[in-house]
Amino acid sequence: MQWERITDFCAATTPTARAELAERQLQALERREATVRAFIALDVAAAWRRLAENVSGPLGGALIGAKDIIATADFPTLYGSPHPENAGPRVDAWCIAVARRLGATLLGKTVCTEFAFPRPGPTTNPHDASRTPGGSSSGSAAAVAAGFLSFALGTQTAGSTIRPAAYCGVTGMKPSYGLLHTEGVQAISTTCDHLGVFAVSPRDAWYLVSAMTMRRAEIVQARKPRRVLFIRMPAEIPLADGYGERFSTLQAELQADGVAAEAIELPFPLADFAGLQKEICYWEAARVLLAPGRMRLLPELEALLGPWLDRDVDLYAAARRRRQAYQARFAELVTGVDAVLVPAATGTAPLWADTGDAVMSRFWTALHGPAMTVPLWETEQGLPLGLQLLGGLGADRALAEAAQWFFARRRR
Amino acid sequence: MQWERITDFCAATTPTARAELAERQLQALERREATVRAFIALDVAAAWRRLAENVSGPLGGALIGAKDIIATADFPTLYGSPHPENAGPRVDAWCIAVARRLGATLLGKTVCTEFAFPRPGPTTNPHDASRTPGGSSSGSAAAVAAGFLSFALGTQTAGSTIRPAAYCGVTGMKPSYGLLHTEGVQAISTTCDHLGVFAVSPRDAWYLVSAMTMRRAEIVQARKPRRVLFIRMPAEIPLADGYGERFSTLQAELQADGVAAEAIELPFPLADFAGLQKEICYWEAARVLLAPGRMRLLPELEALLGPWLDRDVDLYAAARRRRQAYQARFAELVTGVDAVLVPAATGTAPLWADTGDAVMSRFWTALHGPAMTVPLWETEQGLPLGLQLLGGLGADRALAEAAQWFFARRRR
Repeated sequence: MQWERITDFCAATTPTARAELAERQLQALERREATVRAFIALDVAAAWRRLAENVSGPLGGALIGAKDIIATADFPTLYGSPHPENAGPRVDAWCIAVARRLGATLLGKTVCTEFAFPRPGPTTNPHDASRTPGGSSSGSAAAVAAGFLSFALGTQTAGSTIRPAAYCGVTGMKPSYGLLHTEGVQAISTTCDHLGVFAVSPRDAWYLVSAMTMRRAEIVQARKPRRVLFIRMPAEIPLADGYGERFSTLQAELQADGVAAEAIELPFPLADFAGLQKEICYWEAARVLLAPGRMRLLPELEALLGPWLDRDVDLYAAARRRRQAYQARFAELVTGVDAVLVPAATGTAPLWADTGDAVMSRFWTALHGPAMTVPLWETEQGLPLGLQLLGGLGADRALAEAAQWFFARRRR
Repeated sequence: MQWERITDFCAATTPTARAELAERQLQALERREATVRAFIALDVAAAWRRLAENVSGPLGGALIGAKDIIATADFPTLYGSPHPENAGPRVDAWCIAVARRLGATLLGKTVCTEFAFPRPGPTTNPHDASRTPGGSSSGSAAAVAAGFLSFALGTQTAGSTIRPAAYCGVTGMKPSYGLLHTEGVQAISTTCDHLGVFAVSPRDAWYLVSAMTMRRAEIVQARKPRRVLFIRMPAEIPLADGYGERFSTLQAELQADGVAAEAIELPFPLADFAGLQKEICYWEAARVLLAPGRMRLLPELEALLGPWLDRDVDLYAAARRRRQAYQARFAELVTGVDAVLVPAATGTAPLWADTGDAVMSRFWTALHGPAMTVPLWETEQGLPLGLQLLGGLGADRALAEAAQWFFARRRR
C-alpha cells in the first residue's frame, strides 16, 4: 500500500530530511493531482520559492494546505461555492498567519463542499478514484492521503474532519472547541464550528496543534491506554464493511494486552444522537449564511436552511440545554478513561459523489471534546477504516498520546 | 431625573412617534455629546438622510450605535486603540448588516476601552461627568443613558455590558452565548465573547434581540416571577453604596408580594468565581491579540497577556472543564427559578477613569446563560444602581419578561 510508505513530518528531523519530504510530496502532486483533484487553487512555483528560503521554525519546510473556507492572502476563498461573488477577503485567517510564522509553506487551497454542507466538489479518494474522499474537508483529507502535504487544515461542524480522514486513511484531529481560534474561517454554526487538522500520524497532528497553540511544538510519545470505553451503536445505526466485527476483535485484543476495555450501549437518546447537532447547526447556519448581503447559496442549500429562520428561539434554546446536559454526562463517562472508542464513519468511503454520513461524529462534535481518527484497518479492497478516539473537554494532548499508540500498533 | 423621562422604542408605535423620538435623540446629542463623549465617530447628516427615507421594518426610524470593536462599512473600526494601523475592515459585521436590514439607522461608533480591556476611552457618565460610564462598552451605555440612541450594540467577555448598563442606569442584555452571531466583531476570548445590547427598557432589549434572531420583533409583556433566587456575595467581595441593604429590602418586598424569594450563599468556590473567567479569557486573548501580524497593543496590555502565551494547554483545559461542571451546577440551580438575582456591579460608577470591577459579571459570562441589568435604584447622589438577572442557558425571552416586570415595578 502506497500510503503505508508515507513518512510523517516528525520523522524528518533535519532540514535535509524535510526538504526531501517536500520534494517527494511535490512529485506525488505532479503525478496524481489530475486524478485526486484535492486543490481548488495552488501555486507550486511559489511553494518551491518559499521552500528554497529554508525558513526556520517548527514548521519550517512543511507543506500545508488549507480548506477553501479558510481565508488566505495569496489565494481566493470561495467556500466550495460556484458563485465567484462570494469570494472572501484576501487576508490570512488566524491559523494561516500562525502557521506561516511557524515556518509553514502554504501550497494551496483544498476543495470544500459548498459551505461545508453535503454538495461535493471534484475531489476523489486517493485509494479509489471512484469513491468519495468524504466531506466537507474533502481536499484536505485527500491531499494528505495522496502524500501531497504534511499537514492540511480543515474544519468540523458535524463530521467534516473525522469522516474524510477515515475514508482517506489518514489521521484527523478535531481539537476541543475553542482551542484553535477560528477567526478568518467562514462561520457555519458558531457553537459547533471547530478547526480540524489532517496529518499522517497522531503525533504529527498534535505537533501542529501544539505549535499553533503554545510557543513550543511537542512530539508526543505513544502511550498505552490503561482504560478505554467502547460505545456500541444501536441497531438503527448499522455499520458496514466489517466495522462491527473489527471493533469486537479490537476489544478482545486490548483486553488480552492488559487494557481495561469495557463496552457500553450508547448512553444518549438515539434521536438526539442522530439529530441534536442538526437542530443547533441548522438554526445557527440559517442566521449566518442567509444574513442580508452575505452569501449566495445554491438553491438546495437555501431551501434546506430557509425554514430554520422561522424556528422559535425557545426550541433552539431547548436543544442547547440538552447539549449542556449531555456534556456533563459525557464528562462523567470519560472520568478515568483514556479514550472512548467508536467508529469514525459507518463504513468505507461511498461511491463518488456521496460524501457519506456524519452520524458517527456530529453528536460528539456538538459536545466539544477532542476527537481523532486513526487509520487502523484496511478492507480486502484496500479501503481504509478508521478508529475514532474521543476525549473529555481539553484532554487533547492525552488523546493524541493514546492515538499515537494505536497508530504505532497497527504497524507491528 | 432626566433619564426617567426617556421613552423606550416600543412606546413609539407610529412612524411619527418614531420620528419625534429620533429628533429628540439628535437634539440631546447636540446638547450633551461634548460632555458625554460617547462616540468615536458619528455622522449626524447621514443619519438625518437615512431617517428621511422613512425606512420600514421593525427597526425603521431607530437610531443605533455600535461599539468600536464591531466592523462597519461607513465608519472605521479602531478597537479603542490609539494605533491607526489596527483599523479593521470596512464591511458591516453580521449584527450591523442585520440591524440595517431591519430598518435601523447607524448613527456612529461608540467608545470602547482598548480591545475591551480596562484602559478607558474619553466617555463620561451621563449622570455625573466626573464618573466612569464603565467599560468596555463605555460609549454604548452612555449614549443610551444620555438619550442619544434607542439601541446600542456592545459586547461582553467579562462584564462589559452588564456593568456599564448599571453605572449608566439603562437596561443591558447579554443574550446566551451564540444567540447573536459575532462575525465581524473583534474576538477577544472566543469561548467568552458575547454580543450585548443596551436599551432603555428590557422590552426594548428583547425587541432588538428577537428581531435580529428571528423573522419577527417581539414586544414582551412584564411577567411577575413566581420564584427568584438571590445569591449572597461572600464578605471577600464587598458591596458599596447600600447595594446589600437594597437587596435585603427587595427580597422582603418580593416575599410580601407573593414571590418565592429565597437567598443562598454563593454556591461556587470563591477563587473560581473571581478568577476562572480570567484564566480562560487571558489564555484565549493572548493567542488572538498577540497573533503574528494582527494587532498593535499598548505596552500594558501586551505585558498583561504575554505570559499567557507560555501557559500550558492542560492548565487551560482544566479551567474549561471546571467551567463545564459549573455550567451543569448552574443549570440545576435555575431549574424552576424565573431569575437569579445578583448585583450588576459592586456599587455605583467609580470616579473617572477607573472603569470599575467586572467581578459581578465575569463568572456568569463564562457560564453562557443570559444576563440583564435593570436600572432599579438610585442613590441620594442621583447615581443608578442596577439589578442583575441571570437565567439558564437559552432562557433569554423569559428573562426579558421578568426583567420587564422589575423595570415596570420601579415606576409604580
